Amino acid sequence: MELLDALKWRYATKKMNGKPVSQDKVDDIIEAAYLAPTSAGLQPFRVIQITNREVLEQIKPIANNQQQVTDGSHLLVFAAWDNYTQERIDNYLAHTANERGLPIEAMDDFRQKLSFLTQRSPEENFQHTARQAYIGFGLAIAAAAELKVDATPMEGFNAAALDELLGLKEQGLKSVTILPLGYRDADNDWLAGLKKVRTPREEFMIALN
Amino acid sequence: MELLDALKWRYATKKMNGKPVSQDKVDDIIEAAYLAPTSAGLQPFRVIQITNREVLEQIKPIANNQQQVTDGSHLLVFAAWDNYTQERIDNYLAHTANERGLPIEAMDDFRQKLSFLTQRSPEENFQHTARQAYIGFGLAIAAAAELKVDATPMEGFNAAALDELLGLKEQGLKSVTILPLGYRDADNDWLAGLKKVRTPREEFMIALN
Repeated sequence: MELLDALKWRYATKKMNGKPVSQDKVDDIIEAAYLAPTSAGLQPFRVIQITNREVLEQIKPIANNQQQVTDGSHLLVFAAWDNYTQERIDNYLAHTANERGLPIEAMDDFRQKLSFLTQRSPEENFQHTARQAYIGFGLAIAAAAELKVDATPMEGFNAAALDELLGLKEQGLKSVTILPLGYRDADNDWLAGLKKVRTPREEFMIALN
Repeated sequence: MELLDALKWRYATKKMNGKPVSQDKVDDIIEAAYLAPTSAGLQPFRVIQITNREVLEQIKPIANNQQQVTDGSHLLVFAAWDNYTQERIDNYLAHTANERGLPIEAMDDFRQKLSFLTQRSPEENFQHTARQAYIGFGLAIAAAAELKVDATPMEGFNAAALDELLGLKEQGLKSVTILPLGYRDADNDWLAGLKKVRTPREEFMIALN
């Protein structure tokens, strides 16, 4: 099974070799995040693709000077909606009706079902949108691995500073994770040769049969 | 690319046909969650596999009487650690050192790096562990789709009631998502024939080149 093989192959690459990833591969990686299932299909996150070297140099100190930010050819920033708003929900419903050739009234029940989202606090909603972003984040990592592209999942950065740099607040977005893409420099990466460790399977899975 | 094909094929199945999924396929689906990347490799979540019909019948009302809970042959519950504790971190470090044939002292720097986790509030840590669980959740959904197994990602259930039923609190776990596994009854599923809708690509991806 291709996915399991890919997940065994991948690791959080610490040292990349500078070889650029082709844009068509990156497009496929973003496509996996794009197709990710999300709560009610709302896709409450965005992916920002950065290849601009100056911007990457500015991001590096924001991300604890982790070298992969600039050693990779592309950096993907996963940014979640800061809140669910009626406008966002209405846009989604109108788009869905349009795509399915339905009158907007066909969405009335669904709109009603989603009304709880606008009654929760922005903080609660952001925790929810962030979780959805993580589904896409995981699928992007898996897609990269299937394409034999290396990626380093990162949470260790100053999100507020990155949001400021990228002007995300104005777009109602908050960065949650970043993902440099490139190719491993296996000879010079201390982690490349180390055994992948997972918790014992019998502790990870609990069966109620 | 197998992953993208699988993601296009899948949908949130509303009606299943009762045909059971073989255990070897379910094992592979859980394996994808098991191999999922997580923050610092801590894997702060567990997967509970339920096939016991009595337990599934008890879960259905907890999950808004969604039919798939009992129409699927297996239900996977993704449950995140309620907190990071020094004991959990130490167990992880000891296991990692052991698996890699290293003395435990080789983990000292890493232990120091992880010390911030035990200084955060349980609530902040749970939001973090839940996000990691969503990475595994997404990969399990993708694995199911690659195996042509249908799955319905669900957040709509009473987590406190499910935790109580499954005794998760005593294990330091909190349920975050559930995933019934089965096969679609395409003829009787209102969603099966509808077009998959995604937000326009040009809105989803923002490029800084």
